[in-house]
Amino acid sequence: MVKETLVQYAKVLGNLSAILDKAQLFAEQKKIEPAVLLNSRLAPDQFHLIKQIQIASDTCKFTAAKLSGQTPPVFEDTEKTIPELKARIEKTIKYISGFKEDDFKGIDDIRTTSPWVKGKFLPGNEYFWEYSIPNFYFHITTAYAILRHNGLEIGKGDYLGQLNYRDL
Amino acid sequence: MVKETLVQYAKVLGNLSAILDKAQLFAEQKKIEPAVLLNSRLAPDQFHLIKQIQIASDTCKFTAAKLSGQTPPVFEDTEKTIPELKARIEKTIKYISGFKEDDFKGIDDIRTTSPWVKGKFLPGNEYFWEYSIPNFYFHITTAYAILRHNGLEIGKGDYLGQLNYRDL
Repeated sequence: MVKETLVQYAKVLGNLSAILDKAQLFAEQKKIEPAVLLNSRLAPDQFHLIKQIQIASDTCKFTAAKLSGQTPPVFEDTEKTIPELKARIEKTIKYISGFKEDDFKGIDDIRTTSPWVKGKFLPGNEYFWEYSIPNFYFHITTAYAILRHNGLEIGKGDYLGQLNYRDL
Repeated sequence: MVKETLVQYAKVLGNLSAILDKAQLFAEQKKIEPAVLLNSRLAPDQFHLIKQIQIASDTCKFTAAKLSGQTPPVFEDTEKTIPELKARIEKTIKYISGFKEDDFKGIDDIRTTSPWVKGKFLPGNEYFWEYSIPNFYFHITTAYAILRHNGLEIGKGDYLGQLNYRDL
């Protein structure tokens, strides 16, 4: 199930990358600096769009690494432009796509830790269901909402991406 | 995994109910009609807060029903107040909490259908990973974002709820 989730995370990151292409075009057409969109937020004390994407990326990376017992690569949070954010997304997709279901067979015994909760752990399964999945979609949806609020013409289909319906 | 997801949906619905309590208090303190918050949206052509919550509720209900081959109850979309929305949430939690993991053993063979995609189906597994989970969190996060944008003092912890960290 972790592998299936990472496949889905990669799909949604790809959808986000396509939404950023629309944002780039929107900025050009409206003659606004893309940085205006990238530094937008829905509340003064909320993270801006760049940070939302960096956290979504980190959630993917840490999910794959922590639940397989591996050391994740360091992704510096230096992105300032849409092409740089798209490269960050691409790098994240590449990293999480390299895992196999078998890499996560120890999830029931894994104790996940975070630097901000010292001396404590969350069991792998709880980290997966109660933190990773809701956290990933939270930041992707917030990134979407920031752009939607700024006038970008996107709908839920851009977020969900294609669903492969078959004939009955 | 469907059962684990429904347990998690119920948890997040409970978190949403607690956020609505904060919204009620906020409206009283600011002397604004709760309906102002409930009819807010982040873009003119986006669904308002009430509808976001109704769709999140429906996503839970249809996930449990479709993936177990059962007929879901009808929840009329008539809510207009915070207490009515909290009752809708409560009703949803009650319904999805009545399922057992065994109810979903046929997920690999189930063909899910929707009235808006006529003559087509989505396999149960794809409906689960590619539609249900991202769709549920999309509408919960959007509900959260609408309130956050309107000045309600909430943070990601209100959305995620409690994580049961243990001592190392």
